Amino acid sequence: MSDFKPGLEDVVIGYSSVCFLDGIEGRLLYRGYDIAYLAEKTSFEDVVYLLLNGVLPSAEESETFRAEMAAQRTLPKSIIDLIRLIPIDTHPMDALRTAISFLGTTEEPVLNTSPDRIQRVIRGISASATIVAALNRVRQGLEIVEPRQDLSHAGNFLYMMTGKEPSSEHTKLMDVALILHADHESNASTFAARVTASTLSDYYSAIVTGIGTLKGPLHGGANEAVMHSLLEIQTIDNVIPYVDEKLEKKEKIMGFGHRVYKTYDPRGLILKKLSAQIGDQLGERKWFDMSVKMEEYVRDRKGLYCNVDFYSASVYYLMGLPIEMFTPIFFVSRVAGYTAHILEQWENNRIFRPRLEYNGPIHSTEITSK
Amino acid sequence: MSDFKPGLEDVVIGYSSVCFLDGIEGRLLYRGYDIAYLAEKTSFEDVVYLLLNGVLPSAEESETFRAEMAAQRTLPKSIIDLIRLIPIDTHPMDALRTAISFLGTTEEPVLNTSPDRIQRVIRGISASATIVAALNRVRQGLEIVEPRQDLSHAGNFLYMMTGKEPSSEHTKLMDVALILHADHESNASTFAARVTASTLSDYYSAIVTGIGTLKGPLHGGANEAVMHSLLEIQTIDNVIPYVDEKLEKKEKIMGFGHRVYKTYDPRGLILKKLSAQIGDQLGERKWFDMSVKMEEYVRDRKGLYCNVDFYSASVYYLMGLPIEMFTPIFFVSRVAGYTAHILEQWENNRIFRPRLEYNGPIHSTEITSK
Repeated sequence: MSDFKPGLEDVVIGYSSVCFLDGIEGRLLYRGYDIAYLAEKTSFEDVVYLLLNGVLPSAEESETFRAEMAAQRTLPKSIIDLIRLIPIDTHPMDALRTAISFLGTTEEPVLNTSPDRIQRVIRGISASATIVAALNRVRQGLEIVEPRQDLSHAGNFLYMMTGKEPSSEHTKLMDVALILHADHESNASTFAARVTASTLSDYYSAIVTGIGTLKGPLHGGANEAVMHSLLEIQTIDNVIPYVDEKLEKKEKIMGFGHRVYKTYDPRGLILKKLSAQIGDQLGERKWFDMSVKMEEYVRDRKGLYCNVDFYSASVYYLMGLPIEMFTPIFFVSRVAGYTAHILEQWENNRIFRPRLEYNGPIHSTEITSK
Repeated sequence: MSDFKPGLEDVVIGYSSVCFLDGIEGRLLYRGYDIAYLAEKTSFEDVVYLLLNGVLPSAEESETFRAEMAAQRTLPKSIIDLIRLIPIDTHPMDALRTAISFLGTTEEPVLNTSPDRIQRVIRGISASATIVAALNRVRQGLEIVEPRQDLSHAGNFLYMMTGKEPSSEHTKLMDVALILHADHESNASTFAARVTASTLSDYYSAIVTGIGTLKGPLHGGANEAVMHSLLEIQTIDNVIPYVDEKLEKKEKIMGFGHRVYKTYDPRGLILKKLSAQIGDQLGERKWFDMSVKMEEYVRDRKGLYCNVDFYSASVYYLMGLPIEMFTPIFFVSRVAGYTAHILEQWENNRIFRPRLEYNGPIHSTEITSK
């Protein structure tokens, strides 16, 4: 019997300079920069530049890069045809997985050997937002909104989602949400994407792996589940009975606990402030107040801290974004992290090929290989 | 500095009763049955049944299951529309990844909680062959061939690929090739599929991960490369100069070496016989003779054994299958293994969430999370 770590818990798979995650202190750095700093002082485009290049852009580089990303937003007509072929009631992450896979077929392959790969991946990151927004519009029976070049990535994404130019407050909120979700070290989907990249498969194959893995309710799918819980609870007075019932039935309370963080998730701290902010702005503090009460009660009773999904749920909800699109929105951001990890995997590659220990029967047969 | 195993070499990730692989002895068992026995005494459908259910079917169960698989072959029209949307010069594995992802959108989700999941996954395995054949026909500018119910999985696959009813010899060859490729423990693509399944994402998401990962030239993509080498060598006299030149330039010789096998790959042994057989049958021993010479020379000079890709290449080639379809054909078989591993992962799940050790700089900033 082997001594193995289920789920590879705490098992180190390699070195990385993309992301530093300190689960004891509750710190998260991208390329050495604290996310609190990045959220306040930079844009999602700057963070993409940072993740891809390892350094923050100068003011001039920032402008150029923003324009580069904006120039890569438009989709070929065949992707729209594909989106219209997908049954309307498909899970949006299945639709997204298919559309991004299709996007890969319309591009020259981006490989570990492509000299221009750091340039080429910008297309994937940029077009991901357009694809998610197009899926959203088609699902709602609305016209697809063409991207605009003059808006930021966050602003244009909200514009394509809703068809309305967003306020500067909403744009900033979305920008910060995108920054906070952009990377998180070797979480399940990023790890899976690295495994795909490790066979020297192409960039889009690895991204598609990320989408399929992010979809799961134990991973990216959790932010939707948080909002469904809040909607089920409905009033602040129901928070404690709801949590009590869940605990009694030994059911999972969505949005709490994390494999790595043993303290407050630093992304949660920032999103908590944003959730209060947007609640005040729109005169609807209810979801925030409920969330705070739930957070405190779960921490007191179970010692569990809320995670990134917990406050992002109410932020997206108050921005009027459909709950079923929460996980695809997570992807619009996380695709940046996948990309940085895929490129890094290729820099110093070794194919992932672990072992499973056999615990089944052995049948003797008249014919054998030996 | 952590002591980690690059590529998770020799790291055990869990128990499995799907596949026993002994790299020292050169033995491979599915559910406890030696592949040499399965190749001689059973069919691919029986092996699928075995992988899914853990036991070989009775004669009656075998007939029923064969009919069940045959009944799941037909594709919805929308998949054909999708295939026609994909640019004709796309890598066939990218097209396959997209088409299987799309297939997932046309089905009710198959989840860890689906009570009928062992029944439902048959659709994925069965339709994979139809999709690969349809892609092949469209790429060649030929009419798509509708599946037939009266042929075996292997026979119908060859029929859909070529438009001609295959000989019983070719059907048997394809059947054995499908059996031999059906599973191989936690190889990179199966492992990646398990990581996807571990977030409790759906069946098709995990299969799509498998395809994207199998595509890589360090993995499934290798069988194509073997055939390209043989075509480049062309004559038996060129074998030794070719190998010498590769070794001198320190280039990889495709089809040799394996992470796990330290001896002959037992699949290679069986495929070697088949390669001789089909060569004799068609009066074209050339590829076989070249392969044998190459195999012996590489073993003598480098101590490397050939792997499964080495002899499957000439077998497929002599059956008239296009080289670019070798990796998709690999998938038509391996999808069975992915399926068994996904179902097993769900039985005793823990999300895969390893760690990466940070080796980048830390920048101090005026704003931090702490």
